[in-house]
Order: sequence, then C-alpha cells, then structure tokens
Amino acid sequence: MNNILLNEQLKSFLNEDIGTGDLSSELVFGSDAMGKGGFLAKTDGIICGTFLIKAVYEAYGDHDVSVRLNARDSEEVKKGDIIAEVSGKVRTLLSCERIILNLMQRMSGIATMSKELVDRLDDPTIKIVDTRKTLPGLRMLDKYAVRCGGAYNHRIGLYDGVMLKDNHIAFSGGITEAVKLVRGKLGHMVKIEVETETEEQVREAVAVGADVIMFDNRTPEEVREFVKLVPDNIITEVSGGITPDTISAYKGCGANYISTGYMTHSVKPLDISFNTIGGIKL
Amino acid sequence: MNNILLNEQLKSFLNEDIGTGDLSSELVFGSDAMGKGGFLAKTDGIICGTFLIKAVYEAYGDHDVSVRLNARDSEEVKKGDIIAEVSGKVRTLLSCERIILNLMQRMSGIATMSKELVDRLDDPTIKIVDTRKTLPGLRMLDKYAVRCGGAYNHRIGLYDGVMLKDNHIAFSGGITEAVKLVRGKLGHMVKIEVETETEEQVREAVAVGADVIMFDNRTPEEVREFVKLVPDNIITEVSGGITPDTISAYKGCGANYISTGYMTHSVKPLDISFNTIGGIKL
Amino acid sequence: MNNILLNEQLKSFLNEDIGTGDLSSELVFGSDAMGKGGFLAKTDGIICGTFLIKAVYEAYGDHDVSVRLNARDSEEVKKGDIIAEVSGKVRTLLSCERIILNLMQRMSGIATMSKELVDRLDDPTIKIVDTRKTLPGLRMLDKYAVRCGGAYNHRIGLYDGVMLKDNHIAFSGGITEAVKLVRGKLGHMVKIEVETETEEQVREAVAVGADVIMFDNRTPEEVREFVKLVPDNIITEVSGGITPDTISAYKGCGANYISTGYMTHSVKPLDISFNTIGGIKL
Amino acid sequence: MNNILLNEQLKSFLNEDIGTGDLSSELVFGSDAMGKGGFLAKTDGIICGTFLIKAVYEAYGDHDVSVRLNARDSEEVKKGDIIAEVSGKVRTLLSCERIILNLMQRMSGIATMSKELVDRLDDPTIKIVDTRKTLPGLRMLDKYAVRCGGAYNHRIGLYDGVMLKDNHIAFSGGITEAVKLVRGKLGHMVKIEVETETEEQVREAVAVGADVIMFDNRTPEEVREFVKLVPDNIITEVSGGITPDTISAYKGCGANYISTGYMTHSVKPLDISFNTIGGIKL
Amino acid sequence: MNNILLNEQLKSFLNEDIGTGDLSSELVFGSDAMGKGGFLAKTDGIICGTFLIKAVYEAYGDHDVSVRLNARDSEEVKKGDIIAEVSGKVRTLLSCERIILNLMQRMSGIATMSKELVDRLDDPTIKIVDTRKTLPGLRMLDKYAVRCGGAYNHRIGLYDGVMLKDNHIAFSGGITEAVKLVRGKLGHMVKIEVETETEEQVREAVAVGADVIMFDNRTPEEVREFVKLVPDNIITEVSGGITPDTISAYKGCGANYISTGYMTHSVKPLDISFNTIGGIKL
Amino acid sequence: MNNILLNEQLKSFLNEDIGTGDLSSELVFGSDAMGKGGFLAKTDGIICGTFLIKAVYEAYGDHDVSVRLNARDSEEVKKGDIIAEVSGKVRTLLSCERIILNLMQRMSGIATMSKELVDRLDDPTIKIVDTRKTLPGLRMLDKYAVRCGGAYNHRIGLYDGVMLKDNHIAFSGGITEAVKLVRGKLGHMVKIEVETETEEQVREAVAVGADVIMFDNRTPEEVREFVKLVPDNIITEVSGGITPDTISAYKGCGANYISTGYMTHSVKPLDISFNTIGGIKL
Repeated sequence: MNNILLNEQLKSFLNEDIGTGDLSSELVFGSDAMGKGGFLAKTDGIICGTFLIKAVYEAYGDHDVSVRLNARDSEEVKKGDIIAEVSGKVRTLLSCERIILNLMQRMSGIATMSKELVDRLDDPTIKIVDTRKTLPGLRMLDKYAVRCGGAYNHRIGLYDGVMLKDNHIAFSGGITEAVKLVRGKLGHMVKIEVETETEEQVREAVAVGADVIMFDNRTPEEVREFVKLVPDNIITEVSGGITPDTISAYKGCGANYISTGYMTHSVKPLDISFNTIGGIKL
Repeated sequence: MNNILLNEQLKSFLNEDIGTGDLSSELVFGSDAMGKGGFLAKTDGIICGTFLIKAVYEAYGDHDVSVRLNARDSEEVKKGDIIAEVSGKVRTLLSCERIILNLMQRMSGIATMSKELVDRLDDPTIKIVDTRKTLPGLRMLDKYAVRCGGAYNHRIGLYDGVMLKDNHIAFSGGITEAVKLVRGKLGHMVKIEVETETEEQVREAVAVGADVIMFDNRTPEEVREFVKLVPDNIITEVSGGITPDTISAYKGCGANYISTGYMTHSVKPLDISFNTIGGIKL
Repeated sequence: MNNILLNEQLKSFLNEDIGTGDLSSELVFGSDAMGKGGFLAKTDGIICGTFLIKAVYEAYGDHDVSVRLNARDSEEVKKGDIIAEVSGKVRTLLSCERIILNLMQRMSGIATMSKELVDRLDDPTIKIVDTRKTLPGLRMLDKYAVRCGGAYNHRIGLYDGVMLKDNHIAFSGGITEAVKLVRGKLGHMVKIEVETETEEQVREAVAVGADVIMFDNRTPEEVREFVKLVPDNIITEVSGGITPDTISAYKGCGANYISTGYMTHSVKPLDISFNTIGGIKL
Repeated sequence: MNNILLNEQLKSFLNEDIGTGDLSSELVFGSDAMGKGGFLAKTDGIICGTFLIKAVYEAYGDHDVSVRLNARDSEEVKKGDIIAEVSGKVRTLLSCERIILNLMQRMSGIATMSKELVDRLDDPTIKIVDTRKTLPGLRMLDKYAVRCGGAYNHRIGLYDGVMLKDNHIAFSGGITEAVKLVRGKLGHMVKIEVETETEEQVREAVAVGADVIMFDNRTPEEVREFVKLVPDNIITEVSGGITPDTISAYKGCGANYISTGYMTHSVKPLDISFNTIGGIKL
Repeated sequence: MNNILLNEQLKSFLNEDIGTGDLSSELVFGSDAMGKGGFLAKTDGIICGTFLIKAVYEAYGDHDVSVRLNARDSEEVKKGDIIAEVSGKVRTLLSCERIILNLMQRMSGIATMSKELVDRLDDPTIKIVDTRKTLPGLRMLDKYAVRCGGAYNHRIGLYDGVMLKDNHIAFSGGITEAVKLVRGKLGHMVKIEVETETEEQVREAVAVGADVIMFDNRTPEEVREFVKLVPDNIITEVSGGITPDTISAYKGCGANYISTGYMTHSVKPLDISFNTIGGIKL
Repeated sequence: MNNILLNEQLKSFLNEDIGTGDLSSELVFGSDAMGKGGFLAKTDGIICGTFLIKAVYEAYGDHDVSVRLNARDSEEVKKGDIIAEVSGKVRTLLSCERIILNLMQRMSGIATMSKELVDRLDDPTIKIVDTRKTLPGLRMLDKYAVRCGGAYNHRIGLYDGVMLKDNHIAFSGGITEAVKLVRGKLGHMVKIEVETETEEQVREAVAVGADVIMFDNRTPEEVREFVKLVPDNIITEVSGGITPDTISAYKGCGANYISTGYMTHSVKPLDISFNTIGGIKL
C-alpha cells in the first residue's frame, strides 16, 4: 500500500461525489454539529478496507474524527456486527459515508470471495492468485483485498512481469524463440511466464527455462498430466474459466497456482450500512 | 459525457496498468508491427462502451488505429457477435486490450442488468433510476451505462440534488422545518427529495411542497396507499431493497420512479474477449 | 463548498504567484521571524471570504498562524473596520497576502453588489439569481459570494440543469418537441428551463410542462402579461440586461426570479488592505 | 505565452463548466450536427483573446472547427463588428461558448482599459505597467491583455523581481541594509525595486543603487521633486491610487513608469456575444 | 516505455523552463518564422534519447516539426556527427532546445558509461545491472538509457522486487525467517533477493531458497568462494563499490550479475549541441 | 523555495519509487515498528538538502519522525560526520531512504563543486553563476544547491530574463535592432543580456544599452580587452567552457560574472549513506 497514492485517489473519489459541495449536509447541519455513527455488517463475510474509514475522513481534510475499529481487515464479521464506531462532525460523517461504503463493500466482497475460493479448493498445496481483471483506478485496493481473503497477487500490471501469450509466441516464431528474445533483454528480477495449451508446448517451455508455465483452459486431468512434465524449480499455474463452481475439481491436480479473475471482476459487495447513533449535537 | 474528463480518466487507467512499460509487448513486437483484432461477445446482452475502443487508443497516444463498430451502444448483442474490428499497431492493440475490456464488460453488464430490471418490472408508467452506489472514479461511465440499458439517472452526486434523509430531518426538527430551511437557501434549479417511511411523513412532505417524495423500504401495498396521498405535481419514488427478484412486485404500484443501486453495485460483467485475427505483420 | 477542491485551487493560486520562491521575503526575513497583521476594510460593504485567510495559510503549508476574525461572511463592514487579525511567521503573512486580498476583495465585491441588487429591487417576492458568467476557475467561490449577498444560485454548470435556448429549440423543431425530447432522457432530479420571448412561446412552454420559464429581454410590462399565463407550479424567471440601474423597474412584476450576471462579470472589488501591526520579531 | 500551460488551464476551465456533461446540448443535438456562428462586438473597444477561440475548441478535443478571425488582438473593434466566424459541430460550439466569452470579454476589457489609461495619460515618456492584482489562475492571460492595450508588465510574480516594501525595509534596518542584504544573495538578472515615501528615502535608495525606485502614493508635485534626485540609470516608478480619473495629473511628472492595478482588478468586460448563423444541419 | 507517462513528464519539464513564456523567442521571432537546425555530437559516445526530439516538440504542442534521425539509440556516434536534423517553427526549435539537450546528454552519458562498464568487465558470462540510484523523476528514462548501453535493469522500484537487507533480516530474526515470512505473503511473480556478507549467510540463503543472492561489498576472491556455495538455479549478484576502475577485477568471478549505481548517479553527460543551419525564414 | 511546489515534487518522487507499495518493508516490518537511523557523510564536502529529510517524511504522510540536524546547509562536513539523526517508524525510514539520499547527494555534490569553483577562481570581484543546464524537474533544488555553495543564480528559466543569442540577433538584423525590438515590448523589471564574440559586437551592445553583456567563449586575454569597452553600469559576464580546470585563468580578468553549467550538468554526488542505529523495536 502506498499511502501517498491512496490519499490522492481518495481525494479524487470524494471530489467526484461532492463536486462543488454536499448541498444537503451544508444546508442542514451547522459546521460544528457533532454526531456518532457505526458501520454495521448486514451479512456475514470477510471484512476489508477498515483502514479507509480514517483515511477517507483525513482525505476530506478532517483529522479530528475519532474512529474505533472493532474488526481488523481479513477477519470474519457476522451479520449485526458493528465494524467500527466513529464520532466527529456530522458534515464529515455524512459527506464521506458513500465513498467509504462503496469501497469497503467492494473490498470486503473481494476478500469474502477470495476466501470462498480458497475454501472450496480445499488444497493447501495450491495457492490462488488474481489477475489484471480489476476495475480501472482500483487495482491497488482490489489486489489488497485479494490478499485479505487469503489468496495471492499475480503481477500488478504490464510492467512487473512478462506473460507470453499466443500472440507473442506466434509473432516471435515459437515459445523457444520468444523466451530467448525476452530473456536476452530482461533484467534478472522479472519472471517470464508462458501460456501453454499442449504437451508439446509445455515441453518446449520447460526446455527453454520459463520461470512459470501456465496451462490455459485445461481440464483437471490434463493438468495432472502436464504437471508431470515440469521440474520442481519451474512454477506451474492453472488458468481459465475458474469459478466457485469449477475450482474444487482442481483439488490435488498438482499445480502450484490457480489464477482467476472471478473475485475481482464479478464482485458481490458485502452489505454494510452506516447508521448514526443517538442524536446529533450542536 | 465530458470528453476532456474521459480522456484524463483513460490516461490514468492506462498508466495504472502500463506503469513504466508493457514489458511483454515491447520486448517481442517491433514498434511498427501491425495486426488486426476483434472484440467478441461471449454471451448475450446489451452492449455499452463501444466508443471507448477508439477513445482508449487515442488516450494511449495512437490516433491511427482503424476501428469499425458493428454494434452501437444500447443494442443487443448475441454470443458470437463481433462487436468491433480493429487494425493498427500490435503494441497499441495489446497494451490497451485489458483496459478496454475491463470497462466495456462492466458497462455492458450494467446496461444489461438495467434492461433486465426494466423488463422484469414491465410497467412503462414507472421509470427505473440509479443511485450513487457506483464505483469511485467511474460515476460518469456507470451512469451512462444505466441510460444505455433504458433506465434513468438519479442525481449525479451530492452537489446537484438535495436528498433529506432521516438524519437531516431529525436534526432540523422535522420534515417541514428541514424543507423550509433548505428551500430558503437553495436556488430554483435544484430539486428537494424527502425520504419518508410513514403516512404521516408523506402527508407532511406533501404539505411542505417537496419536489420528490421517496417511500423508503415500503411494501408494494404500502406504496399503493402512500401514492394516493401525493398530488400529481409531486414526483413519487420507491426505494430500498429492489433487486431483479423483488422488482416485479411493484408493477402497477402507482409510483413514478423506482430507484435501485443493484445494477451498479452488483455488476455481473458481460463476457467479451479480444482476439487477434490472422497474423501480425511487420 | 468542497474543502478538498478549495485546498487544491488555493495551492494552484499560490504556485502561480510564488513560482520558485518569494525572493523578497526569503532574502530579508529569517524563517523564524514572527509578525502580526490586520485585514482592514477601506470602504463599506458586505464582507465575504474571511474563511480563506486560514485556508490560504494552510494551503501554503503553515498551520500555525493564529487568525482572529472580527467579521463573518455576509456581514456589513464599515471603512476602517479590522476584519481579521493574524499573527505568525512573517514569510507566511507576506507570501500569502496578495492571494488572500485578490480573492477576498473580489468575493466581497460580488456580495456587496448582490446585496445592492436585492435592495434596489426591494421586492421580497422575487429572488435574484446568478448566471454562469463567473470567472473561469472561480465558479465555486463566485457563487458562494452571491449567496453571501442575499441572492441565490442558478445552475452551477452545464451538467446540473437544462436550459433550452433558441438554438436548442430551433434544432429540435419547437419548444414542445425540445422539452419532450429532453424529458424523455432525463432523470427526475434535473429541471428543464425554457427561454421564451413571445406569449405564444410562453403558452407552449406551459402546455408542455417546463419546470422553469424564462422571459428573455422582456420589459416589465411584458413580464406582467406573461406571468399571468403561467400556473403557480411553474417557476418564472426574468433575464437579460438586468443592472443596478434597471432592476427596480421589475419590482412587483410578478415573476419568481430575476437572473443577472452583473454581480459576477462586472465586479467592483471591495477595497481591503493588509497591514502589519507593530514590529516584526525574530 | 506558454501553450502547454494554456491548454491545461483551458481544459480545467471547461471541466469546471461541463462537469459530467452538457445536458442540454447532448440531449438535443446529434453528435454530427453542424452549425455556424459568429462572435459579435456589442460595444467599442480593444479586442483581446481571439486566439482563445481555436485554443478552447482544441482543448475541448475538437480539432475540426473552422475559425476565421476578422480582428486581431490589440485592434479596435466597433459595436456590430463580427470578430470571428466559426463553423463546426454544434455541440462543440455551444459547450465552449461560455468559456470563450467569459475569457475574451475580460481580456478585452483589460486591454480596453489599458489603452484608455495610456490615452488619458497622454505622455509617451511614461509607460504604464500592471501589478500582481490579477485574478488567481488568470495571471498569464491578464498580463497578456495588458500588453495588448499598450501597457507593460511589472514583475509576473514573487519569483522574478524583488520589491522591498516598508516591512522588508523596517525589518532589515533601513533601505541601505535591505538592498545590500538582498544584493549580496541575488543573481545579476533580477532587479531590485525599493518603495519610498520621502525625499530622504529616495536619496538613500539612490545611494545604495536600487535598480528601480518607486514613489508610493505621492502627488504629481512630489513626484516632480523626487525625480530630480534620481540619476538617469535608475528607473523611477509612480504607484498608488492611479485610476482613469487621476492619471492625467501625472502627465509630464518626469517618472519613467506609472504602475496601477486598476485595469486588472476593476475589470469592465467588453460586451461580446456569440450567435449562431443560419440553421443547424445534421 | 510508457508514452502517456513520457508525454506528461515532458510537458512538466517544459513548463518548468518556459513558465509564463519564452520571452526572448516570443519577442524576437514571429509565430510563423521557420528555421532548420541540427543536433551535433561534440564527443564520441553511445547516443540515447533520439526519440525525445520528436516527443518534446509534440509535448510542446507542435506536431509539424520535421525530424530526420541520422543515428538510432544505442549506436555509437563520433565527434562531429549530426545526430538529427530538424526543421520547423523557430520558436518551437528554440523553446524546446534546452530540455531536449539536458535529457539527451544525460541519457547518452548513462548509455556511454554502461557500455564502458561492459567493455571494461569484458566477461560475457556476467551481466551488469543498474540500481535505484537514478534521479528522482527520471527513473523510466535513466533505466532505458542503461539498456541502450548494453547493461540490464535491476528492479524498477520498491514495488516490483523484494530485496532483504540487513535491517529486514535483523528485524525478522535471520535470513531463514525473513525469506519465509515474505514468501508466505508474496505472489509467485516477484523474486526475493537476499543481501549476504558471509559464507554462513550465503549457505542460509541457499537453504531457504532465495531467488537471488547478493554478495555485498565482497572482494573478487570472496565472490569466487561464495559462488561455489550456490546451486545453478539461484542467481548470484555482486554489489558494492563497483566503478570503471574496480570492475575488471571481477572478470571471471563466476557471479551472474554485477550491480552498480555508477552509471546513473555519477553521470558525465555526452556533449551535444544544437545549432541552427542556414537562415531563419519568415 | 516554494514549499507547496516542493511538497508536490517530493510526493511525485516517492510515488515513482514506491508505486503500489514497498514490498520488502511492508512484508517484514509491522506498521508500528520503531527504529533510529543516521545520515552519514562518507567523504568531505559542502552539505545541502538537509531540510529535505523532514520534508520527505512529511510528503510520505508521516509527521511523527523526529529529526535532529547536526549540520546546516552550506556547511562543510567531514567524512564520518553524522549529518542527521532520525527516529520514527521503520517503514517510513526505509521507504523514504533512497529519495532523500538521491536528492541530498546530488545537491551536496552541486554545492561542493560550486564552492570548489569559487575557491579555484579565488577572485572575490567576480561572482560565479549557474545556467539552465539543470536536470528537468529539479531546477528549484539544483539552483538552491548552487547558492549553498557560494555561487549565484542566473535566470531561472526562459520567462524571467532575456538572453539574446546569435539566432535572435541574426533574425532581427543585428544587436541594435534586437535590443530595441525587445526593449520596446518588455517591462522594466526584466533584464536583457546580449551574447557577444567580437569587439564590434561589444561596442554595439554597449551603445544600445544592454543590461548585461556576455563574452561567449573568449580567452582571458580577450575578456580583459572587452571589459575595457564596457561602462560600469553595464554588467559583464564570461561564459563558455568553464570547468574547474579552466576557471583560474579568469582570475583578475575584470568581468563581473562567470557563468557555467559545470556544477549542475556534471554532478559528482557527495557520498552519503543511511544507517540504522541500534535495534528496531516493536
């Protein structure tokens, strides 16, 4: 997490919603009216993004809201749990409410689904990783949420890992040529992953020394066979069409990683509400 | 749509993904390698965001990609339809692919669900409107997608409409006081909406001349009763807990609008893929 | 008022003036030299923008200037009144002086003229509203100043209200067609205003249910006639050529609003000066 | 003029007005509707800012508007003159209209007043210069407009010239000490101006070798006396309370420059309107 | 290379230099004056940054400068070579000259030194990599220049590679604990490098399976011994105190990589000048 | 120094390095782990940039690091001196370390070389000034460092001083014409410098009243002759090819200033390291 970047993003999110001013709150509440409120879980799940409560109030310019967190990121919350209690200026609480909820609901939804995928796979020898199918502008937060659910991060973007897909391979004349071409120019801290669909491709990727070999859209049976072709120092990854319904079939398949965009592109947000507690005081 | 803002957002999305460079494409493809590709619908739905294809390439700095659109925003596409065909530099096509897909899939998912809500309600006398439960940073695009699905936009943000909720009402001493307080300071182009839960509140909101009266979390039966209390020149809106499963119960309830955040906060992205067509040429 | 946006604007204004450094203050004053100063009204008027004094010092990065306000926004000040007393680092006081004065003088000038227009009209049944003739970059502050003078805000920009002018009407084939076209796509929170010049146009706008009908460049007599054609639930607005000299003629004309850009486009700044008080201390 | 900076400013001005979209134009005009229009002078004056017409359309993202300028910056226009004729997409013409007018009216007002001050002074041996009393965010454009009216620019900001005022002088122990202190640290490309109010101060400023000596709030008679004390290689400047009504009294006073903020802080915008010409075509 | 980011950086560099305008060029040259010029190598070296010539002119907003490159990045140039010939508006050529030279001189200096380090080492089995000792704001360009000189890039920043130094190791209780701790949370695309100074540390890093083992500040003799402890599938890196004078001692030391910040933190810029050719035409 | 600008630059530098997060520090250190460290001079020189230590931590968002400075900017430090001691969160100390060092090493290198040039010239009647050969993005800091070394600043950019070079002169028809042309449009606070290479040009520049006359690439002997042609109220400047090796030849040459880009374009950074002191505590 980069807190400078986070602060800039939160300010831009608040600006998008507040524009030239929160008409309702400014016209009704005095600038000194104080109040209390709570963030309430309305369904069970893994909570994520609690640190944003304080961070959003501060991005809004109010450093005086008192925030008491009752749950930490990655923990399970139950319906009815009060995740956090806050007290401060009413204008701050209400102008920031929607941004906090929109983000925390999404992130908790991602964490909850990541956890569910881990649970459904039920195989501690295989780690689940995400993809670049995050929402534009939210990658840092989406990927953090994945980790809170017990899954792992694949490369962050196009700049921190090489993924040679069919197009790259075809253009350069084959897996061997593609990997050599890239290896010849790349520093030693970047890994090269190769997409494969056939045994022949897997053998070729092994021979040329790919760091990671991905089996694209393969059945669990195919994966079991492919894995045997790969030595221990090369990482194997299953990818393509992984959902909560299909993942358990890959239990015991022998691969090291399963990658899926499911938890970030088909997000079911965790239901969380914000309620004021007691009266508002002048 | 504000094209200046759109261009700035797309640049920032591309920067998030590309960082200091698309390692795979830069190391494999020459800067002059040309290619073709197509955006393919993999399920049925309402397409939305086709204008982004050209806009993303241009935000990337490449004004020379040829884009032929076979479908227009708001139209239905069927599985297998080629939504658009593009030809240009391979680096551009591959470096921009993910951002285009992530946005167009989400927007088409929103449009498709908006259309489904309209269809399930099946009552042309009631319009469906969205909420502020859009994803931070994507409000302009999310709200556009809602319109493409045949639904309408509620206020854009906190700055272009007044919504008096329980907190505002309690603080100012009641609906009458709250509306008067706000009306006394507000210009004549901004509407005031009041949240109500009881007949008494509805009567009070009518008496004080709210522009829009919202019935919050009311059953269809309650709505039918409440609507009778409101004269024709005041708009009525049903809100709270509206999903594809519950919406049809409100058919014929007599309200003017139903608002729901369902299509923007629980997005099921439309499955769209990008495939290169034929070989890549130097 | 959006404080995040305000802070960003103030930083950009300070950067425009300070550039790579305030040569005079940096070369003469030590970084710890302390001083006191006062903002002095040099003519009578309505004060506006006092909150900027603290906000500019903070945007500059100095949170330790003590600011005592003797007048609040919207209040009348008399020549010789000390509006605010400040004490802190001399470099802060002098590097920020010009930006504070430039803004506060303009805003007070706008508020003073808004008040004068209200006074000259002398008709509590008609409210005065502003236009989009504000200075680029200063809309939020200009519109705030209008409110401080007792007038009201028309739409903020092109995004939060529909104004159908002659071009829009001609293009779509008439007022009826234009309003229907727009109403069919617009959400229920946005109002539609129609510009009219003839009785026939007014009748048409009434028939099609415009939310606001504007009488463009009409004499007080014409307005009196036009107003009779409009039912109570439609708002009427007089516009065009309104100045301090012409406004009183519209007293009792029966319209609900008079809009004018006079107070924001022909600003006579209120004369305010900043003076250091007593010596400067190391 | 820095065109990169100008483009960034114009984009930010357009974003302020257009927000998430120009509702009226987008809902009425098709994206391909074409039209023509003209910018019309409604009073006599010096025109300034004609280059903005093209620049605003381009900042908006439309490079295809045809712009024919009939007048150049600094030229006189008469009531009824068509300053520029434009033809292109109607949406572009109408969405950009207000920003172009707001800027061009202000800049022409500044140029016209600058010219008036020059004319009223009627002394070619004295040049008129502006101050830092420009509107925040508009300094580059305001100062350009001053030049178009035949006046000159004082320093741009706090960073490109030293001005030693009473505070600086008092703090460092006198004019001699202040100038020496600053001269000892400053490069040779920056001039040092000293504010004086008495003969004694003028003599001291001369002795220590100030580059420019300003006579602050002095009568024409005092200026005549002070000027005699200053050798030819030191520039003299009159400042304080200069308006169109007072300036002619300084004719023949012998100073080299008169500085005044009048033309930028009390701007009377030149009345310019935009009118569409003929019909709008699909 | 990310061209969006590059364009933003170049605009910001030009703004830093041009500010409110290039006084000299604007006051002397007409906006249509045309001219020609050439970029001339004044010493021998590896050229780098030629693509910036066009990119800077475009960032400046001028897309019409004709640029003919006579040398490509990574090539050797000799004193007297004309690297590029350009023709276009004189204002563009002169206002952009300094930024192009400042960047291209630095980048060519980095490339030239990178090449010299490779040549002095004279061992094709060892690759030279850079560090994060680049100048703030210039990392993307500095790292590109390193590659043009025949060396390679270490991690780009703190986000795309793990480097466990003494502090990290001490805090977590030893190399074994540190690597396990990190490995347990990290995705499979990020490599872990461990800094070592003793044989015992090397053995521990090998045992726990570090991806890269760095020998910090070790003599060539020590490196030879350490290398023997490391199996082939773990990469070895020499670091600390590497300069053109010391690097040749590591020839044949058996390590895979030598990292050094020398070429980016002690840059000797390649001398390049810009000269106009022939006259300037109106 | 403009602290708003500085803060923005430091944030952008930190973002470049930290990206989406400092993987090593975040995975190893708890967010509350505290530590101490020191900045250590590893060679002798003039220290510069110590104020950045606190400023970088604050730009990072951590206002709680305690910083004790043992040396002030412009002072000499000796190898082994601890320049500053800091204590605070370990994550802050390590994530900010590289940016602080990269900047402080460069700035100290510039200050040290500036001092060396002054010492080698050994002529208090001649001041040394810098040029625009600073690194893009670092001009404010580079120029500050020059001053810390006892040299002075030439113009900051293209906007705060006029420099008429051969191209400008040729285009306008000669020195006389060029200076008159510029003087006729320029305000009185900007100086005009003219580049000369021959006696004839010097005489012409004197006659037309240039503020500064530069002798471009002239030998010490030529300078001695040229200086005699220039009256006292015109400043003389030697420029071209000045290095630590050549500068002493200009001792006693009679010019007022010597300008050189050597200290900013060929920077030898001062070696400074950051070391943690004692253990890190939870």
